[in-house]
Amino acid sequence: MKTVRLVLVGLGNLGRRLCQVLDAKRDDLRQRYDLDLVLVGAADSRGAAYDPLNGLDPAQVADLKVDGGTVADYPGVGKRHWLAPALVGTAEADVLLEASPVNLGQGAEPGLSCIRTALRRGLHVATPNKGPLVVAYQELHELAAEHDAQLRFDGTVAGGLPALYLGQRDLRGAVIERMEAVPNLCTGYVMDMLADGMTWQDATERAHDAGVLEGDGSWDLEGWDAAAKLVILANAVLSQPTTMDDVDITGITDLDPEELQAAKARGERYRLLVGGERQSDGSYTLSVAPVPLSSDHALGHLGPKQMGILYETDIFGTITAIIDEPTPVPSAATMLRDVLDIYV
Amino acid sequence: MKTVRLVLVGLGNLGRRLCQVLDAKRDDLRQRYDLDLVLVGAADSRGAAYDPLNGLDPAQVADLKVDGGTVADYPGVGKRHWLAPALVGTAEADVLLEASPVNLGQGAEPGLSCIRTALRRGLHVATPNKGPLVVAYQELHELAAEHDAQLRFDGTVAGGLPALYLGQRDLRGAVIERMEAVPNLCTGYVMDMLADGMTWQDATERAHDAGVLEGDGSWDLEGWDAAAKLVILANAVLSQPTTMDDVDITGITDLDPEELQAAKARGERYRLLVGGERQSDGSYTLSVAPVPLSSDHALGHLGPKQMGILYETDIFGTITAIIDEPTPVPSAATMLRDVLDIYV
Repeated sequence: MKTVRLVLVGLGNLGRRLCQVLDAKRDDLRQRYDLDLVLVGAADSRGAAYDPLNGLDPAQVADLKVDGGTVADYPGVGKRHWLAPALVGTAEADVLLEASPVNLGQGAEPGLSCIRTALRRGLHVATPNKGPLVVAYQELHELAAEHDAQLRFDGTVAGGLPALYLGQRDLRGAVIERMEAVPNLCTGYVMDMLADGMTWQDATERAHDAGVLEGDGSWDLEGWDAAAKLVILANAVLSQPTTMDDVDITGITDLDPEELQAAKARGERYRLLVGGERQSDGSYTLSVAPVPLSSDHALGHLGPKQMGILYETDIFGTITAIIDEPTPVPSAATMLRDVLDIYV
Repeated sequence: MKTVRLVLVGLGNLGRRLCQVLDAKRDDLRQRYDLDLVLVGAADSRGAAYDPLNGLDPAQVADLKVDGGTVADYPGVGKRHWLAPALVGTAEADVLLEASPVNLGQGAEPGLSCIRTALRRGLHVATPNKGPLVVAYQELHELAAEHDAQLRFDGTVAGGLPALYLGQRDLRGAVIERMEAVPNLCTGYVMDMLADGMTWQDATERAHDAGVLEGDGSWDLEGWDAAAKLVILANAVLSQPTTMDDVDITGITDLDPEELQAAKARGERYRLLVGGERQSDGSYTLSVAPVPLSSDHALGHLGPKQMGILYETDIFGTITAIIDEPTPVPSAATMLRDVLDIYV
């Protein structure tokens, strides 16, 4: 039985659900893979808990958060004002799970610092947090290689869909001629409501109420979220060093609801599509834009809880993968996928 | 630069195309992966060629076959009546690529013997040949483990779709509640023509002429091909030791063309579906049967050159993967995928 010690930073939507998954799966993982995943530390924005001897009970950590509390209140070993960077800098652990909120505006902190610290200490990192990858893709990969650590981020692109593993591993040897993806749920959700005749205000309010849209919504609606995912796809799968400046971004905020309704009447469905198109010199043009997809399109049937990616290749035909993700559990579980991929 | 020496058995539809892929990709693979794939030996039913010093030119091997010839005529090193088992038993090589025709009737020979010999000699094996896996799944895996060799067979299930890698790797940690797949093209091809009003005789003749149906067609039309693929999926992904006897098989031969036409009029599309449904005791019921799929079904839009698989899971939502495979190249290229997966 191999024991793997995990430190989890960020106990929001994803971190909390990962705790529930770790709790539910522990016995099964021991049986199937001879692997004992022990959560030794966890931090949220108010404090942290760390117990290298006995580990934390992930179910109890999740319960503290469901009730609006903080892991700092974890019995015995929780401490207020003991923040993530300090925990990551000192904990005896094997893997950092970094699930703090995406925050590109502030240099992707605190996630970026935590990931840097972990890699320098030789910890592997699994993260669904786009921010650090978008602002420091190359640097973090160099740091990981230097310290013989693995950096995994399968959950950054399209929730629980293994879009990166598919592109990086299963398409090895192929040339990707074209890549198209619908990598988030919220823009499709809003556009479907507009197509149904709802006003912009009603549609965005509804999306807020459903927990699909966060903050003022601009991060998603103006296409930044999709662009960030494209930056990661371009670096990781298309092997093209890419930053946000390289992406041509059109959000959905200027869309005319009447055009959305007309498209629906034609049997088409608008989705915010990210695309990479290979040019004759081998480089890719990268774009984010709302596109009306006909029912013939491989991504033309995506429902409100579905995301997808399509790779058109030279030797593996055209491969499309779609996920139906009714809750955020699959996105959270990508951290488990990454950990198992490292150790199994 | 790492050199990997390949021996290829079987130069039909897939083996010949793999030679073309190896020829086209050699420089690229050296550049991208520091990997030099050298074809040192090749065999067809009439003879073999082997050149451990210089390797064979895969383009020349393919050309010999396109013209209806045999690799035994390969200049200098080709020999008539020198058959695959002898080549595999003696060649200095790292990987056996086994692409001989599926032949379950004769104990999956000659593929099975070649794979056994290769594994015993410590060669890795990559094969799209279902036969040996269906009749000796457990034995071959034990043999591989014993000799520290890898046995890969991604191309056995749904052409170039990485259905096995998706299920075995990307769904690690999950419980698969339901698996559904459309793993071959020919039955859908025939049923689409019947739904269009063609007679059975015309439809099967057309399928023969298009190269979609082989022999008397019974292997495909009676559901054996789909069942063989389900046996491999059940063993490899569902971790349920399975043989053909465990599968409930209904082919398409008893289908009434009028029912197919009626389904089309209802907006449904018949496909020969293989399914695994998890029971309360954790086992799976396994079946092959023609099913009318509505356009709401994730596999309900498959065209005549498309295959797909769906995994409904507990923690990764429902993931569907579809391949559009206009030629057999993707099926052939799975051997390259497998080799790169071993070495990269």
